[in-house]
Amino acid sequence: MTRSEYNKQVELALKYYKKAGIVLTEDEKKNIEVADFGKGLVNELGLQLLVYVNTERVCAKEMVLLPHQTCPEHMHVPTNGAAGKEETFRCRYGEVYLYVAGEKNCEEIKAKMPPSDVSVFHEIVLRPGEQYTLSPETWHWFQAGPSGAVISEFSTRSTDETDVFTDKTLIRAPIIEEE
Amino acid sequence: MTRSEYNKQVELALKYYKKAGIVLTEDEKKNIEVADFGKGLVNELGLQLLVYVNTERVCAKEMVLLPHQTCPEHMHVPTNGAAGKEETFRCRYGEVYLYVAGEKNCEEIKAKMPPSDVSVFHEIVLRPGEQYTLSPETWHWFQAGPSGAVISEFSTRSTDETDVFTDKTLIRAPIIEEE
Repeated sequence: MTRSEYNKQVELALKYYKKAGIVLTEDEKKNIEVADFGKGLVNELGLQLLVYVNTERVCAKEMVLLPHQTCPEHMHVPTNGAAGKEETFRCRYGEVYLYVAGEKNCEEIKAKMPPSDVSVFHEIVLRPGEQYTLSPETWHWFQAGPSGAVISEFSTRSTDETDVFTDKTLIRAPIIEEE
Repeated sequence: MTRSEYNKQVELALKYYKKAGIVLTEDEKKNIEVADFGKGLVNELGLQLLVYVNTERVCAKEMVLLPHQTCPEHMHVPTNGAAGKEETFRCRYGEVYLYVAGEKNCEEIKAKMPPSDVSVFHEIVLRPGEQYTLSPETWHWFQAGPSGAVISEFSTRSTDETDVFTDKTLIRAPIIEEE
């Protein structure tokens, strides 16, 4: 991802936070992360997020997904002797299609198939005010509906560096190329 | 607190959530808690809150304070073998005057003196988008400014029943009298 691509995603994310009524400080606006998972298809496979807090025990984030943008399938495994990350997703704006391990519960999923491997299709649809708590070591992926989405995440400590992806070609840490 | 007093506080809280742009489900609106700390002065000493999630590891809440309403001084002690609760307060709407243990850092505090004992006066003012993380076993109390406040709390498991209050006449669990 180039610096200008990164900046563009941040600008888009800021519009979504505003639509969701979420107020950020000027410093926070400079600390928005953009993950493209190394695929170079950030609008299809990517995520914009702001980490509010990430201590040894607790993490809270505010995530933005653009219309039909997907956070690829992954799970959170035990890290540094602690159980894997437990997380609750709460939809603040838009619509989220969340897929978790378990029986397929729909004929056709609402999400568009993403440009990365997925294997779980138990669908949970989250609209504003709705939330879902995921146990550690549960495969999951999620995609915004046609209006994009803003999602709060409440969790134990985030250790993104140990996330396991179904699609082994993906990488979590974004690489930003200066132009 | 009587049932009609409780209902009145819930109605007020719902107005503040709306001002803050926070969307709740109909079920959540029925689960708003009102704490009056047993003093019968809920508009001065009280708190309205909705617990989004409270697992063994993580808790998230959305709190409402009416103008100059105070959450009394308390601390979170080790409970059931786990370290005391660690919490981050994030202001979403209004202004919060938070007082924690530490040197007094102002001539006059912004808060009005509450109708319960307080002993710490290190002042932190939080405006929308601003937040503060409290370590366990830290005395703290907080009050909304003149416009009231909405505050998100991200924390480890909430165990309100073991909170220790500076004012020993207070009780955490509200008693609602049916009329």
